[in-house]
Amino acid sequence: MKGLTIKELKVGDKEDFEKTISESDVYLYAGITGDLNPAHINQREAESSIFKGRIAHGMLTAGLISAVLGMKLPGPGTIYLSQELKFLAPVRIGDTIKAEVEVIEKIEEKNRIVLNTICTNQNGELVLKGKAVVMPPK
Amino acid sequence: MKGLTIKELKVGDKEDFEKTISESDVYLYAGITGDLNPAHINQREAESSIFKGRIAHGMLTAGLISAVLGMKLPGPGTIYLSQELKFLAPVRIGDTIKAEVEVIEKIEEKNRIVLNTICTNQNGELVLKGKAVVMPPK
Amino acid sequence: MKGLTIKELKVGDKEDFEKTISESDVYLYAGITGDLNPAHINQREAESSIFKGRIAHGMLTAGLISAVLGMKLPGPGTIYLSQELKFLAPVRIGDTIKAEVEVIEKIEEKNRIVLNTICTNQNGELVLKGKAVVMPPK
Amino acid sequence: MKGLTIKELKVGDKEDFEKTISESDVYLYAGITGDLNPAHINQREAESSIFKGRIAHGMLTAGLISAVLGMKLPGPGTIYLSQELKFLAPVRIGDTIKAEVEVIEKIEEKNRIVLNTICTNQNGELVLKGKAVVMPPK
Repeated sequence: MKGLTIKELKVGDKEDFEKTISESDVYLYAGITGDLNPAHINQREAESSIFKGRIAHGMLTAGLISAVLGMKLPGPGTIYLSQELKFLAPVRIGDTIKAEVEVIEKIEEKNRIVLNTICTNQNGELVLKGKAVVMPPK
Repeated sequence: MKGLTIKELKVGDKEDFEKTISESDVYLYAGITGDLNPAHINQREAESSIFKGRIAHGMLTAGLISAVLGMKLPGPGTIYLSQELKFLAPVRIGDTIKAEVEVIEKIEEKNRIVLNTICTNQNGELVLKGKAVVMPPK
Repeated sequence: MKGLTIKELKVGDKEDFEKTISESDVYLYAGITGDLNPAHINQREAESSIFKGRIAHGMLTAGLISAVLGMKLPGPGTIYLSQELKFLAPVRIGDTIKAEVEVIEKIEEKNRIVLNTICTNQNGELVLKGKAVVMPPK
Repeated sequence: MKGLTIKELKVGDKEDFEKTISESDVYLYAGITGDLNPAHINQREAESSIFKGRIAHGMLTAGLISAVLGMKLPGPGTIYLSQELKFLAPVRIGDTIKAEVEVIEKIEEKNRIVLNTICTNQNGELVLKGKAVVMPPK
């Protein structure tokens, strides 16, 4: 298993990964990270919040981007250098989130590529956007 | 449970959270996000990589920052607006990672604060750095 | 991170932690402890029981008390000596349970404190009560 | 699946369940209960504690007692009324813990039995002891 090298990658290349975020995803993520904020695991408090119910951790959604980068584009062997994230809308338990990445720049002399990274829900709403910089495998 | 409001927060306020990253953390995180990159879950392949063994997902480490923001500073009720992340060094299974956040700017008219966010390992090495922008609870 | 010493604690001090008990909490707890009693993980059998549906393990609810003692009051460094538990009402998947502890006695010469420990659901019903004895950190 | 009724149970009846406590048991239990006390999940801090390393939650060990009661003696259909627990020695990741229960009293008119409940480690050390009161299935 080896991902694409910088020579094999082109500006405009795209990949995605989509999954429905389950209650168990949110609860396990809370336990792994220690983020037991009531917004995520307390239905009673979350109902009286601005979001009117429990929401997934924004950083959990961001993990789906990491999955596309590490699994598909560029894929195995990629080294993750940086990521910018803007959290635009809440993700609820049961939402189906698609993470998409697109190559927007190649920096061949440094073996780096820049990608647009976005996540949308089942209604096409943008819930997260940002940019990633990675080193593709050699 | 309610976090600190912008009036209660001061530039220089700091909080942290520290945990030892277990193999089960990495495996569960892989399952939740779909990031089954061999670097994280394939010891045989990971040994022959630049990192000489399995490493935690960079975005898993970033989740510890989210935990400090949502649990401690500002705490419950905080809305996460954006996060920049630079992944500086690998985190291995068994490393003890401390995530620290520090308020560096208050934008009162927009109810926003900017925080430096860093993660270090048990040897004091910086493994991740970046900045977060959040809205404290009202 | 260090909890409160016996000198810092006062009779009447209180803390709590609240979460919604998810199906995944019950299933993971069943797997960890080996308590695969059909009351917890078999909807068909549980429906024909006195509880008319799957219920959480009483000892899982008790774990929320342990969380308050170890995380908040007295907090990190506390040594758990004993716990009495009376299971008063079933906890169902989806119930939001609040665990509360209150210092009721200080035994300074032995560095021990006694606490009332109760758990209530989202309707204010008492589901568990008991007492804990702990040694606060020195 | 139905457990033993009070008529089928005799004073002196015994059952047990034994398992090795894994790191993943402790980490998942921490996430489920919210008990992220550094004693359980922070190797660096735990090493400098009285226990010289991470220990399992006492209440996790207690869950093995619940497993014997609910699975074997009396078994499915049992209603757990109360439990006393004394935590006598730390349980470490990798310890093999045997939970044993023994009927010590029958209260037929109330359909209740009282059991001695103990947990020992692989060296035969008593780590937890107490008593349970349960209603066997009818």
